Amino acid sequence: MTSPRVAVGVDIGGTNTRVGLVDDAGRVVARAGFATHADRPPDQAIDHIADAIRTVIADARIPESDIAGIGIGCPGPVSPRKGLVFGPPAHLPTWTRVELCRELTTRTRLRAVLDNDANAAAWGEFWAGAGRDVSDMVMFTLGTGVGGGIVVDGRLLHGHFENAAELGHMIIEDNGLPCKCGQHGCLEQYASATYTAKRATDALRAGRASILQDVLSKNGSVSSEDIVAAVRTGDAFAEEIWNVTCRALAIASVNMQHFCNPARIVIAGGMASAGDVLFDRVRAGVDELTWKLMDDRPEIVPPALGGDAGLVGAAGLILTAAEARVA
Amino acid sequence: MTSPRVAVGVDIGGTNTRVGLVDDAGRVVARAGFATHADRPPDQAIDHIADAIRTVIADARIPESDIAGIGIGCPGPVSPRKGLVFGPPAHLPTWTRVELCRELTTRTRLRAVLDNDANAAAWGEFWAGAGRDVSDMVMFTLGTGVGGGIVVDGRLLHGHFENAAELGHMIIEDNGLPCKCGQHGCLEQYASATYTAKRATDALRAGRASILQDVLSKNGSVSSEDIVAAVRTGDAFAEEIWNVTCRALAIASVNMQHFCNPARIVIAGGMASAGDVLFDRVRAGVDELTWKLMDDRPEIVPPALGGDAGLVGAAGLILTAAEARVA
Repeated sequence: MTSPRVAVGVDIGGTNTRVGLVDDAGRVVARAGFATHADRPPDQAIDHIADAIRTVIADARIPESDIAGIGIGCPGPVSPRKGLVFGPPAHLPTWTRVELCRELTTRTRLRAVLDNDANAAAWGEFWAGAGRDVSDMVMFTLGTGVGGGIVVDGRLLHGHFENAAELGHMIIEDNGLPCKCGQHGCLEQYASATYTAKRATDALRAGRASILQDVLSKNGSVSSEDIVAAVRTGDAFAEEIWNVTCRALAIASVNMQHFCNPARIVIAGGMASAGDVLFDRVRAGVDELTWKLMDDRPEIVPPALGGDAGLVGAAGLILTAAEARVA
Repeated sequence: MTSPRVAVGVDIGGTNTRVGLVDDAGRVVARAGFATHADRPPDQAIDHIADAIRTVIADARIPESDIAGIGIGCPGPVSPRKGLVFGPPAHLPTWTRVELCRELTTRTRLRAVLDNDANAAAWGEFWAGAGRDVSDMVMFTLGTGVGGGIVVDGRLLHGHFENAAELGHMIIEDNGLPCKCGQHGCLEQYASATYTAKRATDALRAGRASILQDVLSKNGSVSSEDIVAAVRTGDAFAEEIWNVTCRALAIASVNMQHFCNPARIVIAGGMASAGDVLFDRVRAGVDELTWKLMDDRPEIVPPALGGDAGLVGAAGLILTAAEARVA
């Protein structure tokens, strides 16, 4: 009996980094995690990652010859082709043009590939999660911003500048809310967890009536979880804020339907745990907004891997060999 | 010396059908054209196409063994995988579930593949025109509606339902102008030649002051060419109508930048002959609207093949063998 092929997944976040061994069925068979310390020089973080990789391999008692390599998901912008992290503006302020793949290969003698965190997570769901039985899938990840990943005919879409699927910056309203990217009307200003909370907090501070005023008084701001809880009680103000979020996601989903015609759109990230109160409204919005000419509506579904999508997908970049352009 | 590989291109339109022999450098070496007679049963049109194919092959004195096959561009919706025309709502009212590839192969004994007309034209520009030196390209064709074609990493994007790149139905304004597709705020309501003319005609009938009132009195409506001519004279009303068109195309271009990150966006169709008065404004709009985080702005360019893009691209579906999914 041959042992399963296994790869290392590395999921680098601004706060925590996770390292895992993932088998060729997309199961995490060993894992480690530690604080990223984004303020320290990247060399220290890379040493830390290399140590964690050696530890999980040793703990799992898997011969090094069975390890297919290291797949990395990292906050963008990154160059998968060059194995390079450019210097993410917010999450990893000290990382400027880090040759992450080369550095990890030097330390571990394992082949390494990388992609941005949203693409890695989308690849995880596509390979081993909510998209495992389709060829064309889109994923929105609702967090601080809105991350995007697009799989077309079984391949991650990267584009000429390797910066495709920046779906949070789709313009859904001309002259809309200003975004820190320099645009106006970006999807993420309406639909991310952070900006949904900000829209509510701003309106509450301006005096709007809501049961959320109590939360504002106590905490100084409201979170997207607070808003969802208030929606469940029928609070009219929370409904108004939340419906803007869901409608923005419906418009974005219709646009993805017409761009790449996916079988499935996965909505992930912390805010997706709102469940039906999110998915029912986005689906109803798509039904209302999309055309009647053709019946090519994608399914709108929650993720299957939860917080492991990035780790699994990073390893999947190696195990599936689907990433011709990052190999 | 071996003769070049040659394929037949067929470009079916609601009014005219064109048939040509195209060599492997994308040159049209023989051609024929005739009225489609969209009102007659499709069998007659298919007989006519088969006759024209035999005629151009005979006229060009090319041995049949050198003909790689027949590529067809046809108004959608179509199924490239099944070689099927579903029954285009407006352009070919009598065509319902026509097995066009099989019918033409039966009549000519040549292999046949098909795609929708906008994809065929985009493939022509990609293979032999304005996108020949890049891997990732988007094309907007401004006509009655706005046709779209997307090339990702050297392949045409089709999607799960084979209905990708319906870019005219990207929603650019929530609750915007109603579209006959059932949506509101579709790109084509702002940016197609027909609807640009309609926006102007409606406003002129409502009494707006403009030198175009003379054209309206004479012709009963104004065309996009009339609007462009009036823009060149500095007419304020024409400027207002035209700037909406150009801004809509700029928003759509920014969205394509973030979606598939192309090197180049080609804007084609009759209205593209407006030249600088179109391209300068769309480019300025993209510069104004797009983000400042990354310098991944696509070039916005006119087509190189003009009216031959569909014919060349249809033949290219066969000659390039890039269409794995339609082979």
